[in-house]
Amino acid sequence: MDNALRHLQEKVYEANMALVRHGLVVLTWGNASEIDRELGICGIKPSGVPYEELRPEHIVLVDMEGKVVEGDLRPSSDTPTHLVLYQQFSGIGGIVHTHSRYATAWAQAMRPLPCFGTTHADVFYGAVPCTRPLTEEEISGDYERHTGLVIVETFQNLGIDPLHVPAVLVAQHAPFVWGENAAKAVETAVTLEEVAAIALWTQVAQEAWQKLSPVSQALLDKHFWRKHGEGAYYGQG
Amino acid sequence: MDNALRHLQEKVYEANMALVRHGLVVLTWGNASEIDRELGICGIKPSGVPYEELRPEHIVLVDMEGKVVEGDLRPSSDTPTHLVLYQQFSGIGGIVHTHSRYATAWAQAMRPLPCFGTTHADVFYGAVPCTRPLTEEEISGDYERHTGLVIVETFQNLGIDPLHVPAVLVAQHAPFVWGENAAKAVETAVTLEEVAAIALWTQVAQEAWQKLSPVSQALLDKHFWRKHGEGAYYGQG
Amino acid sequence: MDNALRHLQEKVYEANMALVRHGLVVLTWGNASEIDRELGICGIKPSGVPYEELRPEHIVLVDMEGKVVEGDLRPSSDTPTHLVLYQQFSGIGGIVHTHSRYATAWAQAMRPLPCFGTTHADVFYGAVPCTRPLTEEEISGDYERHTGLVIVETFQNLGIDPLHVPAVLVAQHAPFVWGENAAKAVETAVTLEEVAAIALWTQVAQEAWQKLSPVSQALLDKHFWRKHGEGAYYGQG
Amino acid sequence: MDNALRHLQEKVYEANMALVRHGLVVLTWGNASEIDRELGICGIKPSGVPYEELRPEHIVLVDMEGKVVEGDLRPSSDTPTHLVLYQQFSGIGGIVHTHSRYATAWAQAMRPLPCFGTTHADVFYGAVPCTRPLTEEEISGDYERHTGLVIVETFQNLGIDPLHVPAVLVAQHAPFVWGENAAKAVETAVTLEEVAAIALWTQVAQEAWQKLSPVSQALLDKHFWRKHGEGAYYGQG
Repeated sequence: MDNALRHLQEKVYEANMALVRHGLVVLTWGNASEIDRELGICGIKPSGVPYEELRPEHIVLVDMEGKVVEGDLRPSSDTPTHLVLYQQFSGIGGIVHTHSRYATAWAQAMRPLPCFGTTHADVFYGAVPCTRPLTEEEISGDYERHTGLVIVETFQNLGIDPLHVPAVLVAQHAPFVWGENAAKAVETAVTLEEVAAIALWTQVAQEAWQKLSPVSQALLDKHFWRKHGEGAYYGQG
Repeated sequence: MDNALRHLQEKVYEANMALVRHGLVVLTWGNASEIDRELGICGIKPSGVPYEELRPEHIVLVDMEGKVVEGDLRPSSDTPTHLVLYQQFSGIGGIVHTHSRYATAWAQAMRPLPCFGTTHADVFYGAVPCTRPLTEEEISGDYERHTGLVIVETFQNLGIDPLHVPAVLVAQHAPFVWGENAAKAVETAVTLEEVAAIALWTQVAQEAWQKLSPVSQALLDKHFWRKHGEGAYYGQG
Repeated sequence: MDNALRHLQEKVYEANMALVRHGLVVLTWGNASEIDRELGICGIKPSGVPYEELRPEHIVLVDMEGKVVEGDLRPSSDTPTHLVLYQQFSGIGGIVHTHSRYATAWAQAMRPLPCFGTTHADVFYGAVPCTRPLTEEEISGDYERHTGLVIVETFQNLGIDPLHVPAVLVAQHAPFVWGENAAKAVETAVTLEEVAAIALWTQVAQEAWQKLSPVSQALLDKHFWRKHGEGAYYGQG
Repeated sequence: MDNALRHLQEKVYEANMALVRHGLVVLTWGNASEIDRELGICGIKPSGVPYEELRPEHIVLVDMEGKVVEGDLRPSSDTPTHLVLYQQFSGIGGIVHTHSRYATAWAQAMRPLPCFGTTHADVFYGAVPCTRPLTEEEISGDYERHTGLVIVETFQNLGIDPLHVPAVLVAQHAPFVWGENAAKAVETAVTLEEVAAIALWTQVAQEAWQKLSPVSQALLDKHFWRKHGEGAYYGQG
């Protein structure tokens, strides 16, 4: 058992550091967790610890009620959200929470991220849903647990299988992403951020196409043919 | 012949790694291939192998029907698209497929990328076309081959020489780019991504110019002259 | 006392270099300062010195009237702004000024940066205010001191506690950010830049959602199921 | 004299490499030159040579008519543009041409880049002008020389001193930037790119402010106070 927990800490540590490497977090924002369903133990990032100081042994181990079973550090303040998701989405093994720039923009717009192309469709079977905003009551009492509950409610109301759309946008907050383990959740968070960005630029492309005019044939001819074909005079030819 | 195939694998490996270096791919997205037209053999990235684990000997060698002629790995799932292009565009020797952020935005907008300036005109002789969306029938059967066919159809319908416009946007998907070899196709993919981005910002510049007002003469005077001329007091003078 | 000043220089040096590491400054733009309230001495970046040449001993020590108490270098031309803030905002110990891209955009738009989400709310208790433009008189005489005064005026008029909203946008100029010390002010400047960016993309997301349509069910099915479940044929299986 | 020319090559080489370091060029786009006005010799990047292969001795030395006075390589195809500027703008000593992303967007929009803030005003005394498009005749004959002439015409028509606004946007093309030497021109090109970007985001900020609404007081309270003051429960306390 000891070994299983050390291994869990290692994996959660690696996933948290991968968030930094992929540019998904700044400062101490964001956290990754993984669950050992056999032991009923979840490993999660400690609250507010800078990534450069983070070590595998700092990963906090909590039981399904959120009680720390080992270690002196406080777990992430988002721990109750993670635990609700592990309880309600039985098929998942790892969770990632970030405030990555583009996915957070969609969460702040309080809009689902529609599937505008195959990059999205490869990973998410339809729009990534956005929750409703929390009520004042939900915010003032047990806020982080309610964040988990509103995610579950969203998937239930929309009839979405969380294994088919392994991410959500929490309204006015940021994304939560999950998968079979923490490493897989990180990978899906990378995809979410990328498709969130591409979706924005799709809109700007649409506008550019409608409103701008191309260059003249003369300029097109000049620039293409000064680099191509017999009359080219660019380079050391 | 053995040496020619080893060399082909090397070149395809280098082109795939260059995609990563140029920031055109994330995770395992994207692939590059090159053809040895004499041998009728195409080298292409294996499917779903992480770039950090990729080695030259992993490059899958397939014949023109897509049969693997050497190696244990499955070729990229996009192999049938590459093969259609090699068959129909006889002047090309290398192909690159990415989901690079800005080019993909144009593909998702289902709009051709117009030529808005000389950066574009230097490499593409006119707009980079966008295919029509595939039909349900084309999607459900032999999807990747139909992706190649709709690219060819697009160039034929528009009467574009694929050597003069060496790239296409597949609607709701992403770009395919080609050239005399894989290295050249990578370079053209870099250009495509750059001009796709500049085209977006051209639209925002146009709007900014129409809607915003410049600073006052007083502020302009203050900031310019505190750094320039006789009364300057910025720096160690 | 000598040691206290050396230590102050070290901390101010570190904060200035952290601005570079976080990508908040280009060329010689931006500066960080910290005050030793006991000694009444402020350490600040010298004017126009390139970051790569900056050493702790270059940090200029000035008293509360801006007189250099040690060193041969001229202090940042923004020193009078820093001093006004230290005088009027008694609870702060460090100040950072940058022209970071996204926060500066909001300053140029002459709009407060509204709180669109929890990333913002975690650090700023409400909108980050924007000053009024300076008058011609304020610009032409004692410009940098007036910049400080208009910041103070803005917080007084709006009744904002500068410890609850530790940043401001100076109209048509750029942000000033503060905190208990210079290191903390740098961290807050990182957050400001990030939430300024996310706020922009929130607007674009809103537009994209209103104006674009998602892909067909057929394309969604194809791409999701070619990578997931029993019929998947992506990767090395 | 030999030494002076070696030194000129060194400086032009350094300026060209600085363009890469500052992220202002991709592939082989862009070039920097410097003139030795005493000798009447201009050093400029050779055409189409990749930056990673560039060495100081590759810098091509040309006289004021563009004749190569030393070396086997062809000078940049933009050499005639540089020479017109050196001839007509007698106070300048170095020129940089890039297709940097944001400045090029403004050139493609065929709009001057207005001065929206002090970052701009610190370096450019007013809007950075945009030329008219070249005529078909100008494009088809002596294109690069006409590019220089239309720049000069723009400054003359607008009555702008090129030392006060040391840059121009060539319509549908890209920026040219100058200064007392090549190193200074590179620095100004960095500023131009940065203010071109900030100007775009100023427009988006303006729109975001007009169209989006902030979060509720309840959410603001929750997030700010869970990290600040007596009831805070974030971090390791």
